[in-house]
Amino acid sequence: MSVLSEITSPALLLDKEKCIANIEGMIAKAKKHHLILRPHFKTHQSVEVGTWFKERGINSCTVSSLQMAEKFANAGWDDITIAFPFNPRETKRLIDLSSRIQLNILIVSETGLEHLAASLGNRIGVFIKVDTGYGRTGIPASSIEELEKLLSTLDKYAHLDFKGILSHAGHSYKCRSSEEVLKVHQENVFQLRQLRSFIKLKGFNCFLSTGDTPTCSIAKDWREIDEMRPGVFVFYDLMMEQIGACSEEEIAVCMACPVVAKYPGRNEVIVHGGGVHFSKDFLLVNGEKQFGRIVSLDENGKWTRKWEGAFVSKLSQEHGIITVSQEQMNKIAVGDLLGVLPVHACLTSDCMSQDYKFV
Amino acid sequence: MSVLSEITSPALLLDKEKCIANIEGMIAKAKKHHLILRPHFKTHQSVEVGTWFKERGINSCTVSSLQMAEKFANAGWDDITIAFPFNPRETKRLIDLSSRIQLNILIVSETGLEHLAASLGNRIGVFIKVDTGYGRTGIPASSIEELEKLLSTLDKYAHLDFKGILSHAGHSYKCRSSEEVLKVHQENVFQLRQLRSFIKLKGFNCFLSTGDTPTCSIAKDWREIDEMRPGVFVFYDLMMEQIGACSEEEIAVCMACPVVAKYPGRNEVIVHGGGVHFSKDFLLVNGEKQFGRIVSLDENGKWTRKWEGAFVSKLSQEHGIITVSQEQMNKIAVGDLLGVLPVHACLTSDCMSQDYKFV
Repeated sequence: MSVLSEITSPALLLDKEKCIANIEGMIAKAKKHHLILRPHFKTHQSVEVGTWFKERGINSCTVSSLQMAEKFANAGWDDITIAFPFNPRETKRLIDLSSRIQLNILIVSETGLEHLAASLGNRIGVFIKVDTGYGRTGIPASSIEELEKLLSTLDKYAHLDFKGILSHAGHSYKCRSSEEVLKVHQENVFQLRQLRSFIKLKGFNCFLSTGDTPTCSIAKDWREIDEMRPGVFVFYDLMMEQIGACSEEEIAVCMACPVVAKYPGRNEVIVHGGGVHFSKDFLLVNGEKQFGRIVSLDENGKWTRKWEGAFVSKLSQEHGIITVSQEQMNKIAVGDLLGVLPVHACLTSDCMSQDYKFV
Repeated sequence: MSVLSEITSPALLLDKEKCIANIEGMIAKAKKHHLILRPHFKTHQSVEVGTWFKERGINSCTVSSLQMAEKFANAGWDDITIAFPFNPRETKRLIDLSSRIQLNILIVSETGLEHLAASLGNRIGVFIKVDTGYGRTGIPASSIEELEKLLSTLDKYAHLDFKGILSHAGHSYKCRSSEEVLKVHQENVFQLRQLRSFIKLKGFNCFLSTGDTPTCSIAKDWREIDEMRPGVFVFYDLMMEQIGACSEEEIAVCMACPVVAKYPGRNEVIVHGGGVHFSKDFLLVNGEKQFGRIVSLDENGKWTRKWEGAFVSKLSQEHGIITVSQEQMNKIAVGDLLGVLPVHACLTSDCMSQDYKFV
C-alpha cells in the first residue's frame, strides 16, 4: 500500500529528510558562530522529532509552557528553558520540575519571586526577559532602573540563579525582506550587548540568549551572543517564506486533504481540512487572504511542484475552500488528496496534536 | 478550595446552568414550531454535554466528521447525520458505522456512490445537500437538472435511502442584525419548499433539514421545515452576539487565563492564553481586531460583569495581549485570573480538547 492510499481524512505529512536538513543547517550555523543552539520545541512538540536533535548533539531545548517542559523532561531532556513569563500560579509544579532537571525560567517582574525562592529546595535558572522592540513581554531594554531592581532582587535569593538576559525579536515576523530582518537583528543584538556591559559592571555574569527563526535563518553577525533559540525553522512554513527566511523547498510539513466537492463555475474545490486542522492564521497576498498553498503529492506522500496560483481562500471548522484555475480543476477528482502547505506550522502541528505521518 | 484557586494554566469554564438554559430554550422553540431538533455536536464535542440533550428527550444529533460520528455512536447515539459532504475515501468506515446505527450522509455529487452502494450491507440515509446562498457546498438550489440526476442515481441503489434535502445557510454569519438574518432565513426556506414541491412531483418523499444558530435563534417562520440543526447555540459566543443571535448573558463558556505581565505604559496586560487555546478567529469592532472580551470571575468560576472596553487585541501561540484602561490596569495583579469570552466557541472548545471545567 502506498502512503497516500491509507489516508482517508486530513493528515499531517512530515518529510523527515527536509526536516533533518533544516535541523542540520541550523546546527551548522550555530557552530560556525560559536552559539549554543537551544531549539524551541513549541513548533513540533514531538518526542520523536526531539530525538533527531539529540542524535546530532543537541542537549538543551526551549519550550513555551510548563506542560511542554514536563513532557520533554519525561522524555529525557534535562536542560529546558521555558520561554514564557513566570506564572506564579504554577510555582508548585515548577519547583517539582526544577528538582529533576536544569530548568530555566523567564521573569519580567518581581511578582511571586519571593514565594518561589522561599519554596525552592534547589536552584532554578532565571533569565530576565528584555523587550528589544517586539512590544510583547519583557522589561524595556532602555529601562536600566527596572533591570537593576530585578538584579538586586535576584541577588537576595540563593536559589534563584541569575543566568542572563533573553530576548525574542518577534517583530521580525512583520518583515518582508532580508534587509528588514537584518535591521531588526542588528538593533536586537546591539541592545543585548549594551545591557550585558552594564550588567557586567554590576558584577554579574550574563549569558545572552536570543532568537526567532527569521533572524536565526538570515543574520550573520552573532558576535557576543551565546545562544540562539529558533523554533519554526524545523519545519518552516509559508509565513517564513513570505518573510524571506526559507524557500518553499525547505518546508517540511504538508497537510494531505481529501477533495469532497468541485465547483467549476466558482473555480473552487472543497476539501476536508478546516480551522480545526490548520488553525486560522493567513497571509495577505495582493490583498487576498491565503490559508495555505496547493502542491502535488506523490504516492509516497512527498510533495513536489506547487500548483501555480492555487491556494486555500477560506476555512470553516472542517471545510477548506480552495481556489484553482480551470485547467487545475480539470485535473482534480472528488476522492483525490491535495497537498496543502501550511501558513503557520506551529499552530497547524498543535491542531493536529503532533500526529505526524513521516514520509 | 475554590474553583479558581485550582486553576494554574488556561482553563475552559463551562457554566452548566447557562448551557442547559440554551438547550432548553432551543428545545422549546423546536417544539413550538413542530420541528425535530437534531443539534450539531461539533461545537461541544462532549459526551457529557450530549447527555444533557438526551435527558431532555433529544435522540438524534448532527456531527461534522466521521470521526465525531464514531465517537458519539460509541457513546450510545444511534441516529446521527454527518453534515459534511460524503468523502469516498471513508467508504469502508462509513459502511462499518452504518451497520451499527441510523447513519445519514450528505451528497453533493455522484462520485463514489456506486462503490458505496455496492459495498453496503444495509441502508444508509442520504440527504442531498443544497446550496441556498452560502456558496460553500451543495448543488445550487436553482439547478433542477443536477437534482434530477442525483435523484435518479439514488433511485437505482436500494441501500441508498434518499431522505430529503438539507441546507446550511451559513451566510447568516455575515449578518449584523435580526432583519438581515430573517432575510437569509426567508430565502433559504423558500428555496427548500420549492425544491420539495418539485421532488414530491417526482414521486419521492422529501424531508427538509436546515439550520445554523443565527436563523434558529431568531427566525419564527418554520412552516414546512421538518428539522433544525443549530450547533453553537449550546454555548453561544461573541460572534453570535455580534450577529444578534444571543446576548452576552447567554454565553456559556469562558476561558480563565492567568495574568503573567502588566505594561501600564501600553495599557496592556499579558495572559497565558494564546492561539493554541482560543484559535484565531476575531471580530472587527470599529476597525479593530478583537479575539476575546474580558469579564470578571468569581471564586466559583462564574463570570458576571464585563470590563467595559477591555478585550484581547492579539494572540500569539501561548500569549494573549489584552487592552485595558488605566483604571482596570490598577485592579489587575500578576497571578490573577482573567475571564475571556471567546469569539468562536466551536474552535476554542476544539483547541481545548473539550476539557471543560464545569461551574
